[in-house]
Amino acid sequence: MAESTTRQLYTTLAATLQEIASLSQGLHVLGWDQQVLLPSSDGATAARGKALAALSGLVHEKSTAESFGALIEELEAQPDLDEELTVVERANLKLAAIDFRKNKNLPTSFVREYREHTSLSHAAWVKARKADDFPAFAPVLAKTLDFCKQYAQYVDADRPVYDVLVAEYERNLPSTRLAEIFSELREALVPMIHTINAAEHPDTAWMDAIHWDVKKQEELCKHIAQEIGFDFTRGRLDASVHPFTSGFNTYDVRITTRYSATHFAEGILGTVHEVGHAMYEQGLPHDLDGQPVGRALSLGVHESNSLFWENFVCRSRAFWRHFFPKIRELFPDIPDNTTADDLYAAINVARPGLIRVDSDEVHYPMHIVLRWELETLLLNGEVEVDDLPRIWNERMSNYVGIAPPSDKDGVLQDVHWPEGLVGYFPTYTLGQVAAAQWAHAMREQLGDLDELIEQGEFKQILHWLNENVHKKASVPESADALLEETVGEKLSPKYLIAHLKQKYSALYGVEL
Amino acid sequence: MAESTTRQLYTTLAATLQEIASLSQGLHVLGWDQQVLLPSSDGATAARGKALAALSGLVHEKSTAESFGALIEELEAQPDLDEELTVVERANLKLAAIDFRKNKNLPTSFVREYREHTSLSHAAWVKARKADDFPAFAPVLAKTLDFCKQYAQYVDADRPVYDVLVAEYERNLPSTRLAEIFSELREALVPMIHTINAAEHPDTAWMDAIHWDVKKQEELCKHIAQEIGFDFTRGRLDASVHPFTSGFNTYDVRITTRYSATHFAEGILGTVHEVGHAMYEQGLPHDLDGQPVGRALSLGVHESNSLFWENFVCRSRAFWRHFFPKIRELFPDIPDNTTADDLYAAINVARPGLIRVDSDEVHYPMHIVLRWELETLLLNGEVEVDDLPRIWNERMSNYVGIAPPSDKDGVLQDVHWPEGLVGYFPTYTLGQVAAAQWAHAMREQLGDLDELIEQGEFKQILHWLNENVHKKASVPESADALLEETVGEKLSPKYLIAHLKQKYSALYGVEL
Repeated sequence: MAESTTRQLYTTLAATLQEIASLSQGLHVLGWDQQVLLPSSDGATAARGKALAALSGLVHEKSTAESFGALIEELEAQPDLDEELTVVERANLKLAAIDFRKNKNLPTSFVREYREHTSLSHAAWVKARKADDFPAFAPVLAKTLDFCKQYAQYVDADRPVYDVLVAEYERNLPSTRLAEIFSELREALVPMIHTINAAEHPDTAWMDAIHWDVKKQEELCKHIAQEIGFDFTRGRLDASVHPFTSGFNTYDVRITTRYSATHFAEGILGTVHEVGHAMYEQGLPHDLDGQPVGRALSLGVHESNSLFWENFVCRSRAFWRHFFPKIRELFPDIPDNTTADDLYAAINVARPGLIRVDSDEVHYPMHIVLRWELETLLLNGEVEVDDLPRIWNERMSNYVGIAPPSDKDGVLQDVHWPEGLVGYFPTYTLGQVAAAQWAHAMREQLGDLDELIEQGEFKQILHWLNENVHKKASVPESADALLEETVGEKLSPKYLIAHLKQKYSALYGVEL
Repeated sequence: MAESTTRQLYTTLAATLQEIASLSQGLHVLGWDQQVLLPSSDGATAARGKALAALSGLVHEKSTAESFGALIEELEAQPDLDEELTVVERANLKLAAIDFRKNKNLPTSFVREYREHTSLSHAAWVKARKADDFPAFAPVLAKTLDFCKQYAQYVDADRPVYDVLVAEYERNLPSTRLAEIFSELREALVPMIHTINAAEHPDTAWMDAIHWDVKKQEELCKHIAQEIGFDFTRGRLDASVHPFTSGFNTYDVRITTRYSATHFAEGILGTVHEVGHAMYEQGLPHDLDGQPVGRALSLGVHESNSLFWENFVCRSRAFWRHFFPKIRELFPDIPDNTTADDLYAAINVARPGLIRVDSDEVHYPMHIVLRWELETLLLNGEVEVDDLPRIWNERMSNYVGIAPPSDKDGVLQDVHWPEGLVGYFPTYTLGQVAAAQWAHAMREQLGDLDELIEQGEFKQILHWLNENVHKKASVPESADALLEETVGEKLSPKYLIAHLKQKYSALYGVEL
C-alpha cells in the first residue's frame, strides 16, 4: 500500500524537526561545557560566544525557513489529518506550528535588541545589587517590562500580556487560573506561617560541630542518586557553582550540584532536587526524542518532579531513617545519641528568611506569591517600578513575617527579572502544588508512601511517575490537562496545604 | 581613505573563515565531550552521532558553498594582492583556497563511501586482530589502498599518490625528501640498535616494589604541567582511556592523560608529551584564531613540540633531578638510597619491543621507517597486501632486533591503516627529527639546556619555542621552510642521530 500524502509530509516534518533538535543539542552541549568546564580566560569565553552565536544563527535559520513553514501549512491543510495521524503526531504538529509561528512573528531586530537589553540589564543589576541601589536599576527594569509588552504583542496580540508571558514557561495556564491557585494558597499559608514563626524552633547547633567532609558528601549524593533511580548509564553528575540539569536527550541527562562544608543538607537536597528533574528527562519517551511533543510539558511540571523528590521524599522522616546507617558510616563524628529523627527535624526547620532560594517548604510559596502579585500589578499598570521596594517590604512582612533591611536582600534578589524572565516565578509554586497532588495519588494507589521510602522502594515511586507523568511528555495541552488525566483533578493547592498543615503541626507541636 | 576592493574582499573572506571555524569548534567540542564525558548507553552515542552528522553537514555546506568559492576566486584575481595584503594574509588566502578546492574536488558520494568503508574497516580490524587473523583483514586493507589512490586522483592527479596522501598531514614534503631523511636514519640507527640490544640493561625491578598511587601521580602531573608552562587558565587536564590533546582555539586547549599504577613513567611521559602539543596550540597567535594560517603548520611540527618536551626535557637526567624532591615527597616508599639518576636510567631503558607505542627513543623511529617503507612499496605495487606479515617480520628482525610471534603484535598493531590513515606514520619521526634540531638550536642560543632544565628554567625554553615555532603558525610553506627560517637548515636527522649516540653510549657504557 502506498503511503498517503499526509504520512509522507509528516515523515518529512519529523525529519526536519529532528535535524533542528540535533543542532540544538549541539548548542546545549556547548552551553553546558561553558558552565561546567570552560577554562577561565576571557578569550575562551569570547571564542565560545562566537561558536554559540554561529550555531544559534543556523538553528534560527532552519527553524524559520520558508520551506519549513510551507511544509507545516501543507500538512495542516490535509483533510485526512485525524485519520492518518495519531494523537501524539497531531500534538507534535501543533507544537511545531506554534514554535514556528512564534519564531516567525518575532522580528529579528526585536530579538536582537531585547537580547542586548537583557545583557545590559544583567550587568546593571549586578552593579545595583552590589551597591544596594534599587533606583539605579529601576529604569532598566521599566524598559524590560516595555520589551515584555512588545513581545506579547508580537506573539499573540489577542491575549492578555501576562498570559502570553507565562505561556513561555507554562503552557495554557491563564492568569485567571493562577489567581485562583495563588489566592487559595495565600489565604491558607499566611496564618500558618505566623503561627510557626512564633513557635520554638528545634536546636540545630549540634550539626555545626560535625565535619561534613565534602568528598564524603559527594560519595553520599552519588549513592542516593543511584538508589532513588538516576540512571548513570544515561547521565552524569558533576559539580558546578550553580546546580542545574541539562537533558540533551533521554539518553544523556546531566546534573550538576554543589556541596557546602558548613550546610550539610544543601548538597543532598540540591542533588535530590536535580535528580528529580533529571529522572523526568530520562523518563520521557525515547521514540519522541528530538520532537517537540517529546519534550517536558512545562516548567511547572518539571518542578513538580524535582519538588516531589525534594519535599516529599528527601525532606521526609522516612528518607533520613533509610539513609541514616550510610550517613553515620560516612560521618563518624555524628554523636552516638543522634538519631535519624534529629536530622529530619534539623533539615525541616522553618524560620522566616529573606532569601527565596534558602526558604523552606512553608515560606517558599509566599516568596512566589509576592513575585506573581508584583508582576501582575506592574503589567496592569497598577504599580510603578519605583514603588517596588516599599510594596516588597510591606508584603514580605505580612506574608513571610520578616522585612529586609535593604533592597539587596529584598526586591533586588534573584536573577530572573534582570535576565528578562517575567512570568517565570509562578512555575516554582505550581510545581510544588502538583508535587503534593502526585504524593496524594501515590498514597491512594501505592499505599503508605513513607513506608516505601523507609524501605528504599524508590523503584515503585519512580515507576508511578514514569507511567503517569513522564511518558505523557507534551501530549496533554497543559498541566491542568495532565493532572485531570492522571489524578482526576486540575491543579489544586488543597493537597499542598493539607501536607504542610499536617507535617508542621507535628514538627512544631502547634495547631495549624 | 576608502578601503580598497581587495581589502573589503579579504575582510569578508576572514569573516567567512571565522564563521566556519566557529562551527567547527562546535564539532570539536562535541567530539571531545563524546570521548571524555559521554554517558555509556548506546542511545547517548547514537544521539551524539546525529548531532555530529547534522553539524558536520552544515560545516561542509558552508565550506563548499559556491559563493565562498566565488569570493576566493575574485580575491585571487585582484591585481594589487601583493601590495594590499600582508604576507600572512596572502598565506591565509592560499591555504583557504587549497582547502576549498580539495573539498570541492572530492565528490560527496566518494567521501560517503570512503567513510563507510573506513568504519567497516575499523570493525574488521578489531575482529581480525582479536583472532590474530591477518588474511581476514587483508582484502579490507587492499580496498583502503584503492580508496587512497582514488582520493589522490581527485585531489591532485599530477602528483605522486604518496605525496598527496602525506600532504594531508605534512604540507609540502615530497616522497623524495622522506626517502633522504629516513634512509639516513636507518643507516645510522640499525647498527646502534643492535649494539644496545646486546648490552646489559639496567635493573629496574626496584620500581615494581613501589606503590605508585594514581591520585598522587595525577597531582604530580598537574604540578609538572603547570611548572613547564601549560596555562591552566587557557586549558584543562582530564583523564581518558586514550590520551589526546584538543585545541578548540588558543584560549581553550584540553589535554587528556591516563595513569597506570604499575608503570609509573607512563603517566608522566604521556602528560609531558600532550603538554608539548598543548603549549604549541596555546602559543599559536591569538589574532589568527579561526583562520587557516593560524593553525599548526603540520602534524610533524606538532609532534616536534610534543617529542621535544617528552624526549629532550622529560627523558633527561636534569628533569628527574629537578623534580626528584617532589617525587620523593609524594611517593614515600621510594628507597632511601634511590637517586634521581636511578629513575633516569630506569625510564630510559631501551629494550627491543614489538609494540610501537611502547617503544623508546632509539627503537621508535625504526617502527616508523618500516611503516613508511611498506606504505611506499604497497602504493608502488612492489608489494602485495598478502605479503605484509612476511616482510614485517623480516624487517622487524633486521631493524628492531625482534620478530613478533604473531601478526596481532606485528603488522596488525596500530589503528591508523584500519582508519584509512595512510601517509600519517612518517609525521611521528619527522617530529622526532625536528625536536632534535630545536634542542640543538636552543643549546646554541640559550646555553646548556640541561642546566636550564635542572634549574627549572622552563620559561626560557617555552619562550624560545613560542618565538621560533609557535608564532609562525602556518605562514611557512612546509616544515623544511620553517626549519630553514629558524635553525638555518632543513629537516636533517643528523642531530637526532648525534643525540641518541651520545645519550645511549653513556647510559649503556657502549661505543655507538
